Amino acid sequence: MEKIAVIGCGLIGQGWAAVFAQAGFEVSMYDTSAEAAERALKAMEKRISDLTEFDLVAPSDAPQILQRITVAASLEDALDKAIYVQENGPENVDIKREITETLDAVAASDVPIGSSTSGISASRYCKDIAGRQRCLVAHPINPPHLHPAVEIVPTPWSDQDVVSKVNDLMIKCGRETIVLSEEIDGFVVNRLQGALLEEAFKLVGSGIVSAEDLDKAICGGLGLRWSIMGPMQTIHLNAPGGVADYVARYGKMYRGFGIGSYDDVDWASIAKEKLATEMTQRTPVAKIPEAQIVRDRKLMALLRHKKQARVETSKQ
Amino acid sequence: MEKIAVIGCGLIGQGWAAVFAQAGFEVSMYDTSAEAAERALKAMEKRISDLTEFDLVAPSDAPQILQRITVAASLEDALDKAIYVQENGPENVDIKREITETLDAVAASDVPIGSSTSGISASRYCKDIAGRQRCLVAHPINPPHLHPAVEIVPTPWSDQDVVSKVNDLMIKCGRETIVLSEEIDGFVVNRLQGALLEEAFKLVGSGIVSAEDLDKAICGGLGLRWSIMGPMQTIHLNAPGGVADYVARYGKMYRGFGIGSYDDVDWASIAKEKLATEMTQRTPVAKIPEAQIVRDRKLMALLRHKKQARVETSKQ
Repeated sequence: MEKIAVIGCGLIGQGWAAVFAQAGFEVSMYDTSAEAAERALKAMEKRISDLTEFDLVAPSDAPQILQRITVAASLEDALDKAIYVQENGPENVDIKREITETLDAVAASDVPIGSSTSGISASRYCKDIAGRQRCLVAHPINPPHLHPAVEIVPTPWSDQDVVSKVNDLMIKCGRETIVLSEEIDGFVVNRLQGALLEEAFKLVGSGIVSAEDLDKAICGGLGLRWSIMGPMQTIHLNAPGGVADYVARYGKMYRGFGIGSYDDVDWASIAKEKLATEMTQRTPVAKIPEAQIVRDRKLMALLRHKKQARVETSKQ
Repeated sequence: MEKIAVIGCGLIGQGWAAVFAQAGFEVSMYDTSAEAAERALKAMEKRISDLTEFDLVAPSDAPQILQRITVAASLEDALDKAIYVQENGPENVDIKREITETLDAVAASDVPIGSSTSGISASRYCKDIAGRQRCLVAHPINPPHLHPAVEIVPTPWSDQDVVSKVNDLMIKCGRETIVLSEEIDGFVVNRLQGALLEEAFKLVGSGIVSAEDLDKAICGGLGLRWSIMGPMQTIHLNAPGGVADYVARYGKMYRGFGIGSYDDVDWASIAKEKLATEMTQRTPVAKIPEAQIVRDRKLMALLRHKKQARVETSKQ
């Protein structure tokens, strides 16, 4: 049984511990506060029992999963024989630098060090660290054990081998990895969220719509589809000829909204040159009608689920 | 049994027919092509049987629901005694003007005329129509019967009574209405989608990430939460002090991404002056920890659903 070190035992660290232990890894948790680590270990019981309640962990597996998670007495113990380190320290570049320096000094030299940071590019703190080639960001969505998406963001110095190793490990843990080719502020998840929020703040701020109604536009509309397929697949299925056809039909309309358009982003040429090939490999144009039927069946299954979940909730 | 006229029998019209008939209304469908109308009526059988398959319509109700939907021989017949008209013509301002003029001439004078248009503000075609005070947009998400969200967009001339009447009707039909205070290009849904797509095109176009990985960021990440709660409620629950606290913590980070920021949109003051009051009325700060637990339980129920749906799909 291979071992993973989870450094920092807050909510993110706890979520990761659940992810790794479910995948069969031994998890060694460490926190500079021994009390916090012990509290975290206790909290894991509740987390795993919640997962059992929702059929995400088989009741017969729960005890073993919990047994795989332990608290290390020292950082050295946590890192000893670990094949991967997931760091979950505070969101502060100086603290990240200090922690990562220590991790790099202690962990065996071939062990990748991934950070859960949601906003700090790893190059900002690992530039002067001896083992910077093994540092990268592995950013989950909070809480990590309830969202499969994980962003993997290399620095300019990251070994390609390290990136592949972390990606493979995450996939083995049932994660859906988003691998960035290079660093960009906010990575992908928070840039997409930020773009949507910017428009949302504009609409609510100008009094066009209440926050409650704006929320319905997503939760009763786009969010339903986006929980089934991403925004690119959504538009690919929304025109008979696929994504390039969609942009030809609606691109001008969208750009006409005056939504903080980038001067150098041309939807039509990106659709033709990049998206069309990739998207038609995923879903050939001839298969779009069939994919629409599958989409609608998934939507109906989701609506049934939401209906049942509402009943479940109102009973509590 | 009150009657609703559905004008234009394409996919959107068919979706609306399902929505209205499920809510107990008699639905009179009309299309300038009698053939299209007959095809639509036939398609309704499949639609309702799909809804039955997914427990969204009780099998014992299905025959009555279908019986409520008929095809009218003429526009006059369709509009006769209708209490509401849902127009689903082509997305062309001149055609919209022509159709709406006719509808206004034929329908009883107190009957609201809602358009399903996704991109044309009603003022662009109803300005010179006698009954412009009863025209507005009632924009569904395609397919209408599988998304509860409906945007209600008044023109500068819309009667407030008409807006309320259509809103009440939609709520009676189980819709989640987004009521705009005034027209804006793209309304709310497509502006939010457009903002997210603009960033998505930038990221894919610049080679930072593949479209497939970008889709995972939503479908395995933000989209899961957004199918449970909207973006504003999401951030309200993501800081101990609620939305204003969230913006104080992360607003600067988001604005630092350089994502097409509006010069006149100040997250902090909008959060303080508009959002904080509304959001804390929905979820007081003291109740945020409890709301986080409910959110996580909903996420687990959604993950269980997705797991089961995958099994269901792979069996087909």
